[in-house]
Amino acid sequence: MLKVGIVGGTGYTGVELLRLLARHPGIELRGITSRKEAGMPVADMFPSLRGVVDLRFAVPEEAGLDRCDAVFFATPHGVAMDMGPQLVAAGVRIIDLAADFRLQDTATFEKWYKMPHSATSLLAESVYGLPEVNREAIRGARVIGLPGCYPTAVQLGFKPALEAGLIDAGHLIADCKSGVSGAGRKAEVATLFAEAADNFKAYGVSGHRHHPEIVQGLARIAGGAGIGLVFTPHLTPMIRGIHATLYARVTKEADFQALYEKAYAGEPFVDVMPAGSTPDTRSVRGANTCRIAVHRPQAGTLMVLSVIDNLTKGAAGQAVQVLNIMFGLPESTGLTGIGLVP
Amino acid sequence: MLKVGIVGGTGYTGVELLRLLARHPGIELRGITSRKEAGMPVADMFPSLRGVVDLRFAVPEEAGLDRCDAVFFATPHGVAMDMGPQLVAAGVRIIDLAADFRLQDTATFEKWYKMPHSATSLLAESVYGLPEVNREAIRGARVIGLPGCYPTAVQLGFKPALEAGLIDAGHLIADCKSGVSGAGRKAEVATLFAEAADNFKAYGVSGHRHHPEIVQGLARIAGGAGIGLVFTPHLTPMIRGIHATLYARVTKEADFQALYEKAYAGEPFVDVMPAGSTPDTRSVRGANTCRIAVHRPQAGTLMVLSVIDNLTKGAAGQAVQVLNIMFGLPESTGLTGIGLVP
Amino acid sequence: MLKVGIVGGTGYTGVELLRLLARHPGIELRGITSRKEAGMPVADMFPSLRGVVDLRFAVPEEAGLDRCDAVFFATPHGVAMDMGPQLVAAGVRIIDLAADFRLQDTATFEKWYKMPHSATSLLAESVYGLPEVNREAIRGARVIGLPGCYPTAVQLGFKPALEAGLIDAGHLIADCKSGVSGAGRKAEVATLFAEAADNFKAYGVSGHRHHPEIVQGLARIAGGAGIGLVFTPHLTPMIRGIHATLYARVTKEADFQALYEKAYAGEPFVDVMPAGSTPDTRSVRGANTCRIAVHRPQAGTLMVLSVIDNLTKGAAGQAVQVLNIMFGLPESTGLTGIGLVP
Amino acid sequence: MLKVGIVGGTGYTGVELLRLLARHPGIELRGITSRKEAGMPVADMFPSLRGVVDLRFAVPEEAGLDRCDAVFFATPHGVAMDMGPQLVAAGVRIIDLAADFRLQDTATFEKWYKMPHSATSLLAESVYGLPEVNREAIRGARVIGLPGCYPTAVQLGFKPALEAGLIDAGHLIADCKSGVSGAGRKAEVATLFAEAADNFKAYGVSGHRHHPEIVQGLARIAGGAGIGLVFTPHLTPMIRGIHATLYARVTKEADFQALYEKAYAGEPFVDVMPAGSTPDTRSVRGANTCRIAVHRPQAGTLMVLSVIDNLTKGAAGQAVQVLNIMFGLPESTGLTGIGLVP
Repeated sequence: MLKVGIVGGTGYTGVELLRLLARHPGIELRGITSRKEAGMPVADMFPSLRGVVDLRFAVPEEAGLDRCDAVFFATPHGVAMDMGPQLVAAGVRIIDLAADFRLQDTATFEKWYKMPHSATSLLAESVYGLPEVNREAIRGARVIGLPGCYPTAVQLGFKPALEAGLIDAGHLIADCKSGVSGAGRKAEVATLFAEAADNFKAYGVSGHRHHPEIVQGLARIAGGAGIGLVFTPHLTPMIRGIHATLYARVTKEADFQALYEKAYAGEPFVDVMPAGSTPDTRSVRGANTCRIAVHRPQAGTLMVLSVIDNLTKGAAGQAVQVLNIMFGLPESTGLTGIGLVP
Repeated sequence: MLKVGIVGGTGYTGVELLRLLARHPGIELRGITSRKEAGMPVADMFPSLRGVVDLRFAVPEEAGLDRCDAVFFATPHGVAMDMGPQLVAAGVRIIDLAADFRLQDTATFEKWYKMPHSATSLLAESVYGLPEVNREAIRGARVIGLPGCYPTAVQLGFKPALEAGLIDAGHLIADCKSGVSGAGRKAEVATLFAEAADNFKAYGVSGHRHHPEIVQGLARIAGGAGIGLVFTPHLTPMIRGIHATLYARVTKEADFQALYEKAYAGEPFVDVMPAGSTPDTRSVRGANTCRIAVHRPQAGTLMVLSVIDNLTKGAAGQAVQVLNIMFGLPESTGLTGIGLVP
Repeated sequence: MLKVGIVGGTGYTGVELLRLLARHPGIELRGITSRKEAGMPVADMFPSLRGVVDLRFAVPEEAGLDRCDAVFFATPHGVAMDMGPQLVAAGVRIIDLAADFRLQDTATFEKWYKMPHSATSLLAESVYGLPEVNREAIRGARVIGLPGCYPTAVQLGFKPALEAGLIDAGHLIADCKSGVSGAGRKAEVATLFAEAADNFKAYGVSGHRHHPEIVQGLARIAGGAGIGLVFTPHLTPMIRGIHATLYARVTKEADFQALYEKAYAGEPFVDVMPAGSTPDTRSVRGANTCRIAVHRPQAGTLMVLSVIDNLTKGAAGQAVQVLNIMFGLPESTGLTGIGLVP
Repeated sequence: MLKVGIVGGTGYTGVELLRLLARHPGIELRGITSRKEAGMPVADMFPSLRGVVDLRFAVPEEAGLDRCDAVFFATPHGVAMDMGPQLVAAGVRIIDLAADFRLQDTATFEKWYKMPHSATSLLAESVYGLPEVNREAIRGARVIGLPGCYPTAVQLGFKPALEAGLIDAGHLIADCKSGVSGAGRKAEVATLFAEAADNFKAYGVSGHRHHPEIVQGLARIAGGAGIGLVFTPHLTPMIRGIHATLYARVTKEADFQALYEKAYAGEPFVDVMPAGSTPDTRSVRGANTCRIAVHRPQAGTLMVLSVIDNLTKGAAGQAVQVLNIMFGLPESTGLTGIGLVP
């Protein structure tokens, strides 16, 4: 049994990690931290976990993190790079669900996250935790920077076409729609029910933190081609789910449906739907699946629809998938949950 | 034209007041205050008001409130009793949408609102602003304590039967369901979209501030009979609307349908539906109407269904109705909006 | 491996059964029927099941139902009593999620369901499938009438107090709120998104089919005491979930919290929360749990809050729980899913 | 007072028309038809209209339509072209909210609407009812084909840039998101609450009826340039609202913000927001406004965000605006309602 800890379990990625890890047959959850809620039973905060998780939140010093095999960071940005070096030195492998190890360029990190990077050597060895792109590197990694939710949906959607060099990397459009849980469990007016319900709007159009991350990832996939990306996030009145509607200019004709089916044939968590399909976000609600459909709306244009659950394949589920890979467990262990429909 | 001001216009009752007053033909909106947002155009905060309201938020000292005929307080509890005495002394009539002038018993006020009452003499002369109960007193009032949203729905629902002495005042049940806007526009985790959507729960069952207010109001209606009330508020995943499901023990048989129809026959904003009806909250969305249906689910039991929009008849609409009464305008002036369906 | 079939898998209880059975380690799903959709892959209708369920809908004659150990009916009322006798004769045990075997009194059945009962001898031997009341009888049953969703929440909520004879069985109130999936996957105007969203209303107040079922169940629990029940269902803008707010007159004082905790101490799927709690429906979203809180809002009154997921503990989950009991499997097999929060 | 009739008032555009016309000071509502509901008071179907509209649905023959000045068709496609010729011959001017008079090319109409066009001469004289494009022609028209909801949002969003010849008409993308009421008040599984809530999906990507209408309109605006348009509609879990996210390739640089502000400076119902804004659909909920923001997300790309309420500016409100223009009333008469926020 792997001994596992969670730093910062009071947010949405935290409770989703707990939901998944509590039923994961290969791990033992040893500790979970929250300075603010230290002492409180986890199940008091999340009654869905009553009878399932009997841990209490602990201050990090008392959570026994350094005796874990792996520690997840479901924290605000900046925590993993502070605590990570010491844990790694103690032989713990870490998986950061925040942004500390996503961007290899520290100047870019510092520009977007408004803080200096305090663990650059750890960053240098860290691996971007998108299994469909980076599986081999993940196996041996000590430090994982887990992709953001939008970046997961967008990269998986563009990957086969971009890798095959069939679309213009310089003119990509990602029109993305996210459920409100993507904003986290922070008290803010903009994500109140009475603000976000029965409403739809774009946001962050002048610049969103996931833009440089997507560009970095697509550049890696494209083998260095210069990426030009318009990324428009929208807030949608649903709890979970991301729907990426991707547009690209076709530079070389191909059977894109076949290309995508082949590219993801062996992937346990990417489902390419039959031609003509339109995936809905609820089909992956609570599941670790990315569901994709490929369209040609007019000559010269490729459109890809890519959906994930932002908290599962977009965060906690992907984290568990990465954990499984890192420790040689079957990749689907603990991740066989089916989308909750309706 | 009445000169009108608003203290504290950044919340939901504030923007609802602005929506109604902007189209009210008998008033002129002279100023609106917010210390925090002073200088910001109101329409920047609420783009729905672009082209309609061109005021900016001002600090109270510069809003010219003392030159108004009437001032609305759409503020947190405690502000109206601080600012009210000076305004009233200047000849301004005030309508408080918060709780400062709702409870005549200051000990009760202080127990529930955790603050001393600082304007007891103003409280003594204040009038409870429920037109269907208190219309005459409202006409001459200088200070109005506007009812809370739940109290409006519950009192209007019980009033005819209680007034007629046909039900047991000592054993009343008000099972109430509220939309999330009732919690106000405050940054809080419990009312985030991702917490409140697709979810239903009771809250405040060990005690809610509206309980003493409802009891006070029902006692007045019942002519002094001792009120025993179980009041259970529930949070419902909708923006606006209150649905009160009221249960009472019948002590004397009567034709309750006829009783209710007659009781409210002349009321412009109470609609008693035909026997067998079930009002839905959306039928009053944005309208100043309380819609009521009367049922006899079994011998000995009266059930009344009473719906309002918590922001309109439950707050800002009722405030305008009260203003109209105070200044001798036709009671429906500015309040002819029809429920937005769907 | 138990061989299992489903009659009528195109509705919400059907897809929920499929979600649960697909991950149930002790069963093998042999067939699923739909006359209308015969030939269509199940996963085409419900893409959440892609890669998980590879069956096609079949006409009943070709689904091999008579070679199954157990067959679920997730059908409209009337189908199970038509097909049941032949299957039972073939040695198949049946679990009806519709109403055919819920009401022992055929006159009552015929009054509420507007059809003659065509399998009265099967009805006579059938067992009401509420494990917390009827576990022993379920073990040996050949025919199960599974409780409705409201009846499950209401009976579990009243059971300990009623059984102990501490409340007045003649004056019970069940103010119930249901998510819209409770109405099924039928094309109807009243349950369209644009009708039911951002709206709240009572319905069926002049009589609901679940009323006689609840009364029958409570009478059994109460040991024959005459049941007087006001049952008010409300439609709530959420997908899944039932919240029952139950009121009873206390006839004999007791420590109700302790009573409830003790009554359900050994139950795997009933969770009595600590005093002062308010369960939310999302804490059981997709889980087979009934979560209960006990309150005393005023002297003489007991209030119980009882929540379930109408499709899980209120239908398909309970069906699987009953299957486990009937065939001697551990009762939680296949039912360990945790509520999806947020 | 204009005498006005409505054919087919039982859908969402019908009830929205009734909401607006009931408070329109210049019209008198003479009749409303529904064969299916003939005899039923309108307010029984839509209780929001209780006390406001006291008409009953009538069969068309008895509704006195031919004595009206104007008749609205809020009907399924095909009704207006059947009934229109006779009414026009009787001197009635008609405004069709369905598609009968939207497409000038009958072959295109017949391809998309699967019915022959039965009133081609009326079609020939009909005017496309988008005031911001066609105001003068509307004044004198006897027959109006009112734009669809998506076409309104998309055409208003592209118009200034296209008219000025600054973008590539051959490569336009309209990524559009609609509330569920856009699908109408028809009993269908796909738009049930339990299907559409907490879910997001594209639809109609292989071809949508509004595509040829938008192309026809944009071609007219572009002065004949060949239009290439990718149009992707998505279903969003909200009741009302369309959000069009529009992408175009800039062929000639300009100050697009200034261009748009100037283009719509005199328009009462188009609001160009300040640079950097992101309009939300709720800001136009129930209002006849189209709110637009202009962005330059990267060199060479223009992005326009355009929001409307699909039932107001996208249907009934625009119909009233057109009526006002046709009969020389001030264009905003009856259309001063402010967006309902929250």
